[in-house]
Amino acid sequence: MREVAIIGAGMIPFGRREQDELMDMLATASLIALDDAGLGDTSVDAVHVANVGGGMLQHQSAIASSLTDRLSLLPAAAETIENGPASGASAVKAGFLAVASGYYDKVLVVGGEKMHDISAPRATDFVAAMTHPQAEYPYGITMAGLGGMFARLYMEKYKITPLHLHAVSVKNHEMGALNPYAHIKSPIVPESVFEGDFAEINNPIVADPLRLYDLCPVSDGAAAVVLSTVEVAKRSGRPYAVVAGFGQATDTHTLAQREDPVELKAVTLAARAAFDMANLTPSDIHVAELHDAFTILEIAISEHVGFFKKGEGGEAALDGKTCLGGQIPINVSGGLKARGHPLGATGVAQVAEIVWQLRHELPPERQVQNAEVGLTINLGGFANNVLCFILKRVQP
Amino acid sequence: MREVAIIGAGMIPFGRREQDELMDMLATASLIALDDAGLGDTSVDAVHVANVGGGMLQHQSAIASSLTDRLSLLPAAAETIENGPASGASAVKAGFLAVASGYYDKVLVVGGEKMHDISAPRATDFVAAMTHPQAEYPYGITMAGLGGMFARLYMEKYKITPLHLHAVSVKNHEMGALNPYAHIKSPIVPESVFEGDFAEINNPIVADPLRLYDLCPVSDGAAAVVLSTVEVAKRSGRPYAVVAGFGQATDTHTLAQREDPVELKAVTLAARAAFDMANLTPSDIHVAELHDAFTILEIAISEHVGFFKKGEGGEAALDGKTCLGGQIPINVSGGLKARGHPLGATGVAQVAEIVWQLRHELPPERQVQNAEVGLTINLGGFANNVLCFILKRVQP
Repeated sequence: MREVAIIGAGMIPFGRREQDELMDMLATASLIALDDAGLGDTSVDAVHVANVGGGMLQHQSAIASSLTDRLSLLPAAAETIENGPASGASAVKAGFLAVASGYYDKVLVVGGEKMHDISAPRATDFVAAMTHPQAEYPYGITMAGLGGMFARLYMEKYKITPLHLHAVSVKNHEMGALNPYAHIKSPIVPESVFEGDFAEINNPIVADPLRLYDLCPVSDGAAAVVLSTVEVAKRSGRPYAVVAGFGQATDTHTLAQREDPVELKAVTLAARAAFDMANLTPSDIHVAELHDAFTILEIAISEHVGFFKKGEGGEAALDGKTCLGGQIPINVSGGLKARGHPLGATGVAQVAEIVWQLRHELPPERQVQNAEVGLTINLGGFANNVLCFILKRVQP
Repeated sequence: MREVAIIGAGMIPFGRREQDELMDMLATASLIALDDAGLGDTSVDAVHVANVGGGMLQHQSAIASSLTDRLSLLPAAAETIENGPASGASAVKAGFLAVASGYYDKVLVVGGEKMHDISAPRATDFVAAMTHPQAEYPYGITMAGLGGMFARLYMEKYKITPLHLHAVSVKNHEMGALNPYAHIKSPIVPESVFEGDFAEINNPIVADPLRLYDLCPVSDGAAAVVLSTVEVAKRSGRPYAVVAGFGQATDTHTLAQREDPVELKAVTLAARAAFDMANLTPSDIHVAELHDAFTILEIAISEHVGFFKKGEGGEAALDGKTCLGGQIPINVSGGLKARGHPLGATGVAQVAEIVWQLRHELPPERQVQNAEVGLTINLGGFANNVLCFILKRVQP
């Protein structure tokens, strides 16, 4: 396998982007990433677009071809890749394999989603369309509903309290406020948490035991990265990232069918495959982007990846071990919780954030000092299709 | 690049499959291909699903994860790939690069579409959603409308007559009648062609100058192939196909923007790349599956690929040069015209047909004698994203 570098990253601020079409967002993020890659007038060989709702929400297919034309990248190959909320990582993976194969030298990967075209109930339904078509969707379950049930079981089994969950949301809101690309930029007022009128108004229950601050928002947004051979990367003369490890695994499509519903088997398998390929262990990771669609997921994933023992992730969050400057800084970007979660964009945004961290170019209040190795975990469905990347800094 | 083999192929009959869900069709075609691949109890490493309408028509995302679970292929990686009517070839390409990269050894690729859930006008609209979102779709253009305009220009420039188009549909209907997987199994009655009441009833104008017999039908269906390393392929002891060449190219998303609207530049570029990789020329091809969504396209593509000079493809069809036993048999399967065109399935079905031809296992009335090398051309949009595969027979 040929080594693959990530030589460019770009993003547009996530949030309510009512003025933008989906194609506008994809094009803008792409241009920023291409500019960052410093390829000059040379083109890319292929374009991979991560998107879920083009057909369902924008009534538009063949987005990748249309985008490639709009970006004047013809005759580059182009495809759209869909894998629910892990579409972004799946598109990065497609780019990774395309360059690793030797067939393509330079690939643009861009993910985006436009979710504010529709009402909140329709957005919830749109997201729920990734659940099992016979065993889940017809019964009205939503992703938040599954998250609530998962949270209750996990909290009971591992003695996690709402205080642990709250530590995650406080951290991610705090970091989001420092990230110019974040959807939510307001730190959480501590009083707003659990009880009394103030909590009822500011942090009401959404899917018991999950409250408002435990869930990611519905966001519009786009993010892009440019992958290339190491030869191309070296030409820039500046630091870049390489894909040191990659892993992916699927699990039962329904949460109910799992032997132990709080066991995120696909996270364990995907991370293990990535660590094996990179020849690294969890303690080698300096910064991580984990799929915190719900606060409980950041805790659960941090344990399944191997940063903490089972049942210790909540306490670790409360102790500040996952903060900037802590043992393993998690979601320094604000995560899905605060940066936002435009489905197709998320997995690409995670990789972009790690690339910036490894290039040491973020402002001090967001930069993990001397970060050399970073990890991402992007979940499709309710952890039924999980992708893990391990990226390593290279100083040419 | 590691050489990639195709060791299994499966299909279900295309047509009106009112009793089947999309997932049923995908699962059945997959199981047939997996069985054909003879992998026994060993699993595949990844699953690529080609589909366009899951979100728009079935209100379902994350189809690939769901299918992987249903087929008991967990924890195999899984993604859905969309590229309009070229989704099938794009998914095969993803599988090809995945194996070529060295990361995966065995990949299942399955494409399918369920288009009869909806009325004919809605099906037409669904297909039109691949046109340009600002420059084409809002003005009400359909793919048949674009096909009509393209046909008129092509016929004028290259002196193609309705008789030439008719030769293509007569051939493809004839072959479709011999293909158990074909949607349309009725040979065309010669009298039904151009003029008089009989023609008005049996072959009316759809998009002038294209008549009913010039257009592919709206079909449900699914097709699958299994890709692997050559090491895995050899173990079966029987003939298999290898990907000798692959090429892909995009062109302006709108037909109107092309310098010469009858120039299918992306077909030329994709085919050239595939021939270069395979180190072959058009005269080396023994059998071809070309994207005849409209009869005029079979003629135009046969010229752009290099089987015939510009302006000679129509006469070649009329002279029987593209029939079974002719100079270059094209669409012996019945093509999109008669086998049908369930969008996501088509590109995979083309590859499956070539695999069968190269294994010499079709009944004599459909088998191209001694076929050693086959070619496929799958078009996305109106030839704005074209993929070409060249497959070669290997007798271990």
